[in-house]
Amino acid sequence: MQKILNDIAAAMAQETERGKVADYIPQLAHVDPNQFGISVVLPDGQVFSAGDAKTAFSIQSISKVFTLTMALGKLGDAVWNKVGREPSGDPFNSIVQLEHEMGKPRNPFINAGAIAIVDAIMMGHQPKETLAEILQFVRFIADDNSIIFDHKVAESEMEHKDRNASLAHFMKSFGRIKHPVDNVLGTYFHQCSIAMNCEQLARAGQFLVSDGVNASTNTRVVSPQRARRINSLMMMCGHYDGSGEFAFRVGLPGKSGVGGGILVIAPGKASIAVWSPGLDTIGNSQLGTQALEMLVHKTGWSIFGK
Amino acid sequence: MQKILNDIAAAMAQETERGKVADYIPQLAHVDPNQFGISVVLPDGQVFSAGDAKTAFSIQSISKVFTLTMALGKLGDAVWNKVGREPSGDPFNSIVQLEHEMGKPRNPFINAGAIAIVDAIMMGHQPKETLAEILQFVRFIADDNSIIFDHKVAESEMEHKDRNASLAHFMKSFGRIKHPVDNVLGTYFHQCSIAMNCEQLARAGQFLVSDGVNASTNTRVVSPQRARRINSLMMMCGHYDGSGEFAFRVGLPGKSGVGGGILVIAPGKASIAVWSPGLDTIGNSQLGTQALEMLVHKTGWSIFGK
Amino acid sequence: MQKILNDIAAAMAQETERGKVADYIPQLAHVDPNQFGISVVLPDGQVFSAGDAKTAFSIQSISKVFTLTMALGKLGDAVWNKVGREPSGDPFNSIVQLEHEMGKPRNPFINAGAIAIVDAIMMGHQPKETLAEILQFVRFIADDNSIIFDHKVAESEMEHKDRNASLAHFMKSFGRIKHPVDNVLGTYFHQCSIAMNCEQLARAGQFLVSDGVNASTNTRVVSPQRARRINSLMMMCGHYDGSGEFAFRVGLPGKSGVGGGILVIAPGKASIAVWSPGLDTIGNSQLGTQALEMLVHKTGWSIFGK
Amino acid sequence: MQKILNDIAAAMAQETERGKVADYIPQLAHVDPNQFGISVVLPDGQVFSAGDAKTAFSIQSISKVFTLTMALGKLGDAVWNKVGREPSGDPFNSIVQLEHEMGKPRNPFINAGAIAIVDAIMMGHQPKETLAEILQFVRFIADDNSIIFDHKVAESEMEHKDRNASLAHFMKSFGRIKHPVDNVLGTYFHQCSIAMNCEQLARAGQFLVSDGVNASTNTRVVSPQRARRINSLMMMCGHYDGSGEFAFRVGLPGKSGVGGGILVIAPGKASIAVWSPGLDTIGNSQLGTQALEMLVHKTGWSIFGK
Repeated sequence: MQKILNDIAAAMAQETERGKVADYIPQLAHVDPNQFGISVVLPDGQVFSAGDAKTAFSIQSISKVFTLTMALGKLGDAVWNKVGREPSGDPFNSIVQLEHEMGKPRNPFINAGAIAIVDAIMMGHQPKETLAEILQFVRFIADDNSIIFDHKVAESEMEHKDRNASLAHFMKSFGRIKHPVDNVLGTYFHQCSIAMNCEQLARAGQFLVSDGVNASTNTRVVSPQRARRINSLMMMCGHYDGSGEFAFRVGLPGKSGVGGGILVIAPGKASIAVWSPGLDTIGNSQLGTQALEMLVHKTGWSIFGK
Repeated sequence: MQKILNDIAAAMAQETERGKVADYIPQLAHVDPNQFGISVVLPDGQVFSAGDAKTAFSIQSISKVFTLTMALGKLGDAVWNKVGREPSGDPFNSIVQLEHEMGKPRNPFINAGAIAIVDAIMMGHQPKETLAEILQFVRFIADDNSIIFDHKVAESEMEHKDRNASLAHFMKSFGRIKHPVDNVLGTYFHQCSIAMNCEQLARAGQFLVSDGVNASTNTRVVSPQRARRINSLMMMCGHYDGSGEFAFRVGLPGKSGVGGGILVIAPGKASIAVWSPGLDTIGNSQLGTQALEMLVHKTGWSIFGK
Repeated sequence: MQKILNDIAAAMAQETERGKVADYIPQLAHVDPNQFGISVVLPDGQVFSAGDAKTAFSIQSISKVFTLTMALGKLGDAVWNKVGREPSGDPFNSIVQLEHEMGKPRNPFINAGAIAIVDAIMMGHQPKETLAEILQFVRFIADDNSIIFDHKVAESEMEHKDRNASLAHFMKSFGRIKHPVDNVLGTYFHQCSIAMNCEQLARAGQFLVSDGVNASTNTRVVSPQRARRINSLMMMCGHYDGSGEFAFRVGLPGKSGVGGGILVIAPGKASIAVWSPGLDTIGNSQLGTQALEMLVHKTGWSIFGK
Repeated sequence: MQKILNDIAAAMAQETERGKVADYIPQLAHVDPNQFGISVVLPDGQVFSAGDAKTAFSIQSISKVFTLTMALGKLGDAVWNKVGREPSGDPFNSIVQLEHEMGKPRNPFINAGAIAIVDAIMMGHQPKETLAEILQFVRFIADDNSIIFDHKVAESEMEHKDRNASLAHFMKSFGRIKHPVDNVLGTYFHQCSIAMNCEQLARAGQFLVSDGVNASTNTRVVSPQRARRINSLMMMCGHYDGSGEFAFRVGLPGKSGVGGGILVIAPGKASIAVWSPGLDTIGNSQLGTQALEMLVHKTGWSIFGK
């Protein structure tokens, strides 16, 4: 495994087509595009890494997997009254589908859906309390208390909130957001600002590999059925309107973030985190996807056949 | 396995909510809704069945998996110039996406995409020749020369062709259909009219279970990579705007048809065919989906974790 | 003329199908639906009225005609960089068109367009200053210093701002709104809250009857060309996705408001204001439209032939 | 008047930006773009012309005004069960709106609407009979028996029918087209192929100037109310998604055709036909629109004020 990762990291270092770093906020725009990291955690807890796997980055939309997990724990299947579970066929920030479907987001991984999810887990609490809860949960599943928010990123996102504010107010006009929009957005942007490195992120995904149990810490996070379902949602909706492409090329459930990270689950086999800041035109890490394609090719981990 | 299937068939026989039989053509409308069949073929070629597994039905859109396989064989990756590989988020017969994307169908499993695929495999030939080729291919992968077209179904579809004719002419106006529309539609409706029973259909899916090889006949149909990719497309797009729901509930790649059949692949484990004519509101077999949910629950075959 | 109006008012008093009063804010919901007023001002300044023509109501979207006039005065044709001048074919609060056209509203009379217009006339000023300017302008064209804002209506609208806030943030995300969203919305809701009665409103429209000159006060408000153009916009876009219907039935440029008022211009002949709080399904005054149809029938004022 | 037209024709001859001749069929593509004609018929029957006013051109979509008039005569208000009367906000050949509104075209002047109208007037007859009726009607209102179809244009359109065939089949799938699609399209393309020169076309529009009466021949074509309503539809929908622009610039009801002609009605004042083959990006005659703007400026004929 270590050799495979070294080979991948070496191949990625050669790549000149590295995509384009997200530039809508300065904190993301200034990240060095020449970085690449990868970590693989096996069910027995062994960790293999290569490249910049210890460099923290903004997990951004990958956090949506964690808040969905929390929401399912708190609300159970009532979550599906708030968001659907179909691919949207639209970009991450589209509002067209909302107007056609009475303000109900298609799935929890497009921005509108994730905003509805964070509203759902607030349950009348203040942003501060909800954020403490989110951070506690992420630290728990990653078994790492050093994980923190990057408040500068969160604040900068808040300054550029308009597109997400539009989505939130739209849903609120249909009664689908209960808390004040600014509280919900403040919480959402902080959730997205969580800084993790590849090793931490791969560890945080372990519970989805082993049917809901983090095998390293031997703690159950969710039921086996729920783990499967979260994986299915990552498969179907984890890369916005590039989800089909990711399934085609990589063949594993995954969730990408605009910070350049991707969390990928090979059920029963491994939790994988890759990171490279340059994005493709749809907004998914360009080298990250390439690296995953290589990894799956070498390991035969595709869920669609070896 | 036999006991599992017997239990499922018994449970399905009890169901009173059986969905609604497709009624847009008389040949489908007159099918008895009280039928249910299921067949499972293991990689070693063993077949297990229960219920009406020997009753032939119209495979309809399931045929799109076979013509896609043929198209990939003939054109290779040039297929993807003709159709995309993203879920559409729209019903099977929607034309809105075509207008927004210059007449290029989102994927090969919505009607527009399947029509573009059949146009691609015609390669200047007459419908008769193409149909002979399609039938030969289906007989080959199912290892069964008794499989035939149901010409009455095909003719009846042709009489009610308008929605599909609209899709075909729309694509042709963008130069995306090369043959005369009526030839393409005639071929398409015949392809959909293929009559198979659950056992035949499950056998026909075997090559997708074992990385491209039909293990029963020990013949390679496609490369391992191509088998994986076809499975990924079935996962992402096999049930139209109910694909997310199917992934969530069943967790296996599958393709449904309006005749009430579903072909499902558990990679490395089994090829499964179910059939029950009653459809849910999206157009997928209601009891078929339920039966698959039970089967996966009992076998742990979900690709998203056991 | 007086007899015509008396007849219309009498006919309207008989009507039992009066539409549905707007109920999204309490201040509008509590208006008595049994009211009806109509005023006609001729080019020589004569005023004829019937019914509740002296009862003030919330002019709501009719105010968009006045702010558009102001914006044209301040920015000239640069206004058309901010909003288009085509009918949208969509409801007043639709956001779909904005996503398809880079955040640029189709015309100044849908909500998004009117919000963009008020942002344009703010020119760096505070809401208070802009509101003073708007009120001054409306008092000037109506030649009536008693016209005021209804602050309770404006505040209530602000409490139910979400749909409009969604539109505003959406446009701001494309850089099309320059001032803080809450300032723009606060100004917008106040503009809509202006309370006028039919006589005041009909007088305010006089400048559009006589090629830009208020004949009563003998003051030029806009150039003849600009008056024509504003009339053309009222014709094409004044009733949202009911504009074609209004042209068909009434045949005069008009602008409706959700408070139940309609301002209508018969170029060269009359400025007309009607008011009845009950709305049709599209959001235009039901009796108001009926009354106008009668008036045009009796006077031969249609611009499409006598 | 003659001097005005001479001036306009002289000004147009100077223009170098003449737009782009329609090129989707050879018969239109080969027309010399340097031609320009204009004719004005006054209510007393006087005709004034300048430029190539005696050169016949393909009236194309202008024919939709005549078939709508025929349909209203045959079906009365039942026409509005078949098509709406709102601007669509979409290009002439869009199908998106049809899918959203159950196959009912927004208005009779977009292609889908005109196809539904021709289907409505066929009333079980063969294309030949319907075409004879259409030609007879056009000859009647123009008072000119020399007007003919250009069969070569019609046949060439039929060869490039796909986009319109898509619209027709789509409507037929909703039961909105009663006759065979090819019969309807054959009739439609012939109707569009009618060849007229500016003088003939301006005469044909006379009945819309004088409240339904052709004043030259002193024959009533339609009732005053119907004449007004047809004018209102030309105003609202006569230039597709450029209708607002045309109202803004010209301020008169008009209907354009892709052959470069525009028929314009100044109610009570004149019937106007202009022709110049070069089109703007929306598909309306570029010089034609400019010439009309000049004409209205010089005559004060705008219906929105002098």
